[in-house]
Amino acid sequence: LCGQGLFLVLRDFQGLTQIILPQDEAHSHVRKLLSNAPVESVVRVTGIVSSRPPGQENPKMPTGDIEVKVETAEILNSCKKLPFEIKDFIKKSEALRMQYRYLDLRSFQLQYNLRLRSQIVMRMREYLCNLHGFVDVETPTLFKRTPGGAKEFLVPSREAGKFYSLPQSPQQFKQLLMVGGVDRYFQVARCYRDEGSRPDRQPEFTQIDIEMSFVDQAGIQGLIEGLLQYSWPQERGAITTPFPSMTYEEALADYGTDKPDTRFGMKIVDISDILRRSDIQFVQNALSYPHGTVKAICIPQGVVSDEVMDVICRPDGSLKSLLTKLLGKEQQSELIRALNVQVDDVVLLAAGEHKRCSALGSLRLESADLLEAAGMTLRDPTAFHFLWVVDFPLFLPKEENPAELESAHHPFTAPHPVDTNLLYSDPTKVRSQHYDLVLNGNEIGGGSIRIHNAEQQRFVLEKVLKEDSEVLSHLLEALESGAPPHGGIALGLDRLISLIVGAPSIRDVIAFPKSFRGRDLMGNAPDYVTPEELEPYHIQVSWPVAETEAKKN
Amino acid sequence: LCGQGLFLVLRDFQGLTQIILPQDEAHSHVRKLLSNAPVESVVRVTGIVSSRPPGQENPKMPTGDIEVKVETAEILNSCKKLPFEIKDFIKKSEALRMQYRYLDLRSFQLQYNLRLRSQIVMRMREYLCNLHGFVDVETPTLFKRTPGGAKEFLVPSREAGKFYSLPQSPQQFKQLLMVGGVDRYFQVARCYRDEGSRPDRQPEFTQIDIEMSFVDQAGIQGLIEGLLQYSWPQERGAITTPFPSMTYEEALADYGTDKPDTRFGMKIVDISDILRRSDIQFVQNALSYPHGTVKAICIPQGVVSDEVMDVICRPDGSLKSLLTKLLGKEQQSELIRALNVQVDDVVLLAAGEHKRCSALGSLRLESADLLEAAGMTLRDPTAFHFLWVVDFPLFLPKEENPAELESAHHPFTAPHPVDTNLLYSDPTKVRSQHYDLVLNGNEIGGGSIRIHNAEQQRFVLEKVLKEDSEVLSHLLEALESGAPPHGGIALGLDRLISLIVGAPSIRDVIAFPKSFRGRDLMGNAPDYVTPEELEPYHIQVSWPVAETEAKKN
Repeated sequence: LCGQGLFLVLRDFQGLTQIILPQDEAHSHVRKLLSNAPVESVVRVTGIVSSRPPGQENPKMPTGDIEVKVETAEILNSCKKLPFEIKDFIKKSEALRMQYRYLDLRSFQLQYNLRLRSQIVMRMREYLCNLHGFVDVETPTLFKRTPGGAKEFLVPSREAGKFYSLPQSPQQFKQLLMVGGVDRYFQVARCYRDEGSRPDRQPEFTQIDIEMSFVDQAGIQGLIEGLLQYSWPQERGAITTPFPSMTYEEALADYGTDKPDTRFGMKIVDISDILRRSDIQFVQNALSYPHGTVKAICIPQGVVSDEVMDVICRPDGSLKSLLTKLLGKEQQSELIRALNVQVDDVVLLAAGEHKRCSALGSLRLESADLLEAAGMTLRDPTAFHFLWVVDFPLFLPKEENPAELESAHHPFTAPHPVDTNLLYSDPTKVRSQHYDLVLNGNEIGGGSIRIHNAEQQRFVLEKVLKEDSEVLSHLLEALESGAPPHGGIALGLDRLISLIVGAPSIRDVIAFPKSFRGRDLMGNAPDYVTPEELEPYHIQVSWPVAETEAKKN
Repeated sequence: LCGQGLFLVLRDFQGLTQIILPQDEAHSHVRKLLSNAPVESVVRVTGIVSSRPPGQENPKMPTGDIEVKVETAEILNSCKKLPFEIKDFIKKSEALRMQYRYLDLRSFQLQYNLRLRSQIVMRMREYLCNLHGFVDVETPTLFKRTPGGAKEFLVPSREAGKFYSLPQSPQQFKQLLMVGGVDRYFQVARCYRDEGSRPDRQPEFTQIDIEMSFVDQAGIQGLIEGLLQYSWPQERGAITTPFPSMTYEEALADYGTDKPDTRFGMKIVDISDILRRSDIQFVQNALSYPHGTVKAICIPQGVVSDEVMDVICRPDGSLKSLLTKLLGKEQQSELIRALNVQVDDVVLLAAGEHKRCSALGSLRLESADLLEAAGMTLRDPTAFHFLWVVDFPLFLPKEENPAELESAHHPFTAPHPVDTNLLYSDPTKVRSQHYDLVLNGNEIGGGSIRIHNAEQQRFVLEKVLKEDSEVLSHLLEALESGAPPHGGIALGLDRLISLIVGAPSIRDVIAFPKSFRGRDLMGNAPDYVTPEELEPYHIQVSWPVAETEAKKN
C-alpha cells in the first residue's frame, strides 16, 4: 500500500496497480479505512478492473493500462513503523539497507534480480538434467580440511580436538562420483571461503558445479556454451556460440591479464624492436634483461582524460612526448604505424623485465574507466563478450619461495597431452588442461580435465609439489580402482547473475548477503556464545587481551 | 569391465552389456588385451551390436536382447587394486562400504536411488517454479545461534569470541522473504543438526523448504498434495489426493502416536467403560486418576507370535487370560464385541493415567513386526499411505519443569483461529495451525501458518514462553513493517526418497553419508587440526585429559 487521496497504489509480486477510491457516500467507510492505513501496510482489496481514462495510461508500467475501483477493503496487517521512507531508501547507506534487508527486498530491482536468478538456474537445470542426462547429487559440506586449505571455515565436533571443515568446493566429491559411475554430475553447490575482509566476496557463495566422465576439454566447453545459450534470458539478447578462445600466453601478451575484457581494443603492442635502436637509456636497460621488453597501448582519444598520458598524437600527426626528442623520425613513424595512432590518441609505454605486463593491463582498464567518465562509450553495457582462456601453466613458482612449485589451480589438473613428458623433465614448462571462462573481463568459471592415473597423481603430489599425499590417500586409492577419464567445470553463479542484470555487486543478487566484513547486519551474526555452549565442542576462546595479560606475567 | 573368457560384461550408466570376444586370429590382440585386463578396469570398446542368438536373451536386463562383437578395444584405466571382490561387497560391513563409498556407488541400487532422487527433485522444481510461480531463493547457512538452538553447529569467526551457527532450517529467512515481498519461496535447503550419535540421523540433511504469502492451511496442504502427485515416480504407482487428515487427539487416541502408520488396523480401543464394573484392582486404580483409562489393541492372529500376549481368543470364542476369571461373562462378550476379537487374536491391555497411550502405540508397531516376522503380511510394501495430522497443541509443558511451557514446534506457529482468545487466558488449551505430513508411519514433513502480527508474536515469546525477545528483534521489527499473512512447510527429502525406494536407511539415498557417529569414513572427517590453524579463530581445544589434570592440581 502506498499513496493517499483519490488514488492509492498497491504493490504485489506482479508490480504496481492503481486503485481508485470512489468518492460517494456508500464507500465512505472503505475510503476512510484505506486513507488512514499507514504506507506499506498489507491490504486486501476487491473491486472492478477497468481501463484507465484515455490519456491517463502509463505505458512504462505493465499494469499501466488499468485501474481498480475499490468495492471492499480489509487491512490484513498494518505497518507500524518504518526506519525511513521507502522512497528514500535507495539513497540510504548500504549498511542500513542490509540491516533492513526485508524492506530492501521489496524494491523493483531486488525482486527482479532474485526472480531472474531463479529462472536462469531453473533453465540450467532443465538443460543439464532433462536434456543431457546429468544427475543432481548433493555432496557434504561438513568434510575435512584439504591440504593447504587455509581459507576453510572450521566446525568443531563433539570429539575433542577434531574439526570438520566447510570446503571451498565439492572438488574431491565430484571426482569420487566419477569413480563411482555417476558419469554426469551437477550440483548448484554452496561453497565456503574464509577470506576475512575482502570487498565483493562472500563467505558463502554458489557455484554451478559440473563433472563428466569420458570427456575432453572441447566437450566441456561445448556443454557450457550450450548451457549458457539455453538459460540466457531473452531480454538480454541472444548470445553466439562457440565462444572465442585465447591462450594464457596470448591473454597476457595482448591484455596484460588472464581475464581480458574483449569488449574494447587498446591491446598491448610489443614495440621492443622499434625502440631497440633508440638511445633511450631506460629502454636499453630494460631490453638488456632476459625477458626485457618495451610494450605500449594506444588510448584512442586519450587526451579527453588528462590524468594519464605519455605520448600524444598531435593534429599534424607528430608525437608530443618527453621521448620524442630521443626518437628518430623513422622510429616515430614506425610507432604510429605499429599502434595505429590517431589524432588525440595517447600512448602509454612500459619498459621492463615482464612476462605478464600486468601494469599495462591495469592501465588499460583504468584508462577505459577514465575515458568513460569523460563521456566516451568504450564498453557497450548491453554487450556480453564471452572468452575461453586456455593452456594455463600447470605449475607456478611459489610467491614466498620461487624455487618451489605450486599448482596454478589445483593438484588434480591434468597436464596438456602434448606436454605430458615435460612433467618428468621440466614441470615449469608444462601447460595444463585447465580452462577459464571470462565474461566482460570477469572470470565466471574455471575447470579442467583431471588426472585419472594414480601414478601420475602421486608423482604430482609427492615429486613436484612435495606434499604429503597421505591426506589424499582415499582419492589416490579411488584412482586405482577403475577411474574413468573425467573433467569438469564450476561457474560462479553470483558473479554471472550480477553481470547479466548489470548489478554493481554480487550482494545485489543474493537475498541475504553478508557485509564485506562477513557480518549479517540484520540478524547480527556472528555473535558471542556462552562458555557453556562451547563445552560440548571442547573449545574455549583465546581472548586477545587475555593473551597479552598472560604474556606479561 | 567384468568377467573373462568368450564373454565379457561391460557396465556403464545404462546398465550391463554383454561383449563377445571373436575367437579368430585377427582378433587375438584384442582378445588378449581384454582377457588380461583386471576386473573393474575402464575400457573403450568398438564393435558390432547384434541380437543375441535365440534362447540366449536375458529378459531381466534392459540390454538383455543384444550383444556386442568386439572390433577394437582400449584400456583407459587399469584397475590396480580392490579392497575386496565387488560381488561380495554387498555382504560386507556398512563401515567398509562407507570407507570405499566410490565402489559402493557403482552398485545398481545406489545408482538407482541417486538417479531417481535427482529426477524427483527436478519434477518438484518444475511443479513449484514453472507451474506455480515459486522463486528458488538461497538463504545463508552461516547465521547466528537461535534461542535454545542447542543442536546447532558453531563456526568460529575471525572476530574473537564470535561464532556463526549452522541453522537447523531457513525458518527465519523464509519468513523474512515473505515480509520482503517474495510471496512464493522454495529452496532445496541444506540443514544442519548436531545431535551427537543417533541412528539414522545425519548431521547435514536436505529439506524441500516452502513458504507462501496470503495462504491458509488448506492452501499449503493442496499445494503439497499436488507437488507429490506431480513428482511421484510412475514406477511406484499413482497416489490419490487429497490425503486423509486426522487430528492430533485422534492420532494419539487411535494409534498412540502422532505419526500413525495407517497401512494396517489394530487401532487402540478405550475399554474403560467395559471394565469399570470389574473387580480388577489395577484397573480400578488406574480409572481413579483424572486421565485414567484402560485401553486395548486386538492383534489379529496374535497367537502366531508367542512373544507378546495377554488375552487370547480360543476357538470356542471364550477368552484365555489371567484376567478372565476376574471378568464376568457379559464383560467378556462386550470386550469381544468392542475389539471385534476373532479366533486366535490376542488382545493387549494397558491401564493407567495416560493421554498419549504411547505404550500401546509402540506395542502395536512391535506386534506388526513380530507378525510379519512370523510370515503374515500386514503392511503392503508397495502401498503408500499419506496422512495429514492437524490441530496439534501450540504449547507443551517443559519436560524438565512441567509448570513452564515450550512451543510444541516453534514459537512462530500461529494459534488455531478458533482458539486465539485462549492464548491470553489458558495457553495450554490452544491448538495450533501446525500440520504434519505422515507417510507409512514416518513424519516426512511439517509446517504451519505463522504469526504475522508483531504484538501476538511478542506476547508468545515474552509472556507465554518467557524468552528474551531481543535476539529476535529483527523478526519482530519485520512483522511491524507490513508483513503479509503467511505459512509454509518443509519436507524431509532424505526420508521421503528412502521410503519411495524402500531403502532401510536414509544413508542409502545420500551419496556420501556420515556414519551414525557423524564421521566420514572415506575421507576421515572430522580430523585434528594444528593449534596454528585455530589461531585465526581465537579458539583453543580444551582437552578432557588436561581438564582432569587441571582439576587435580
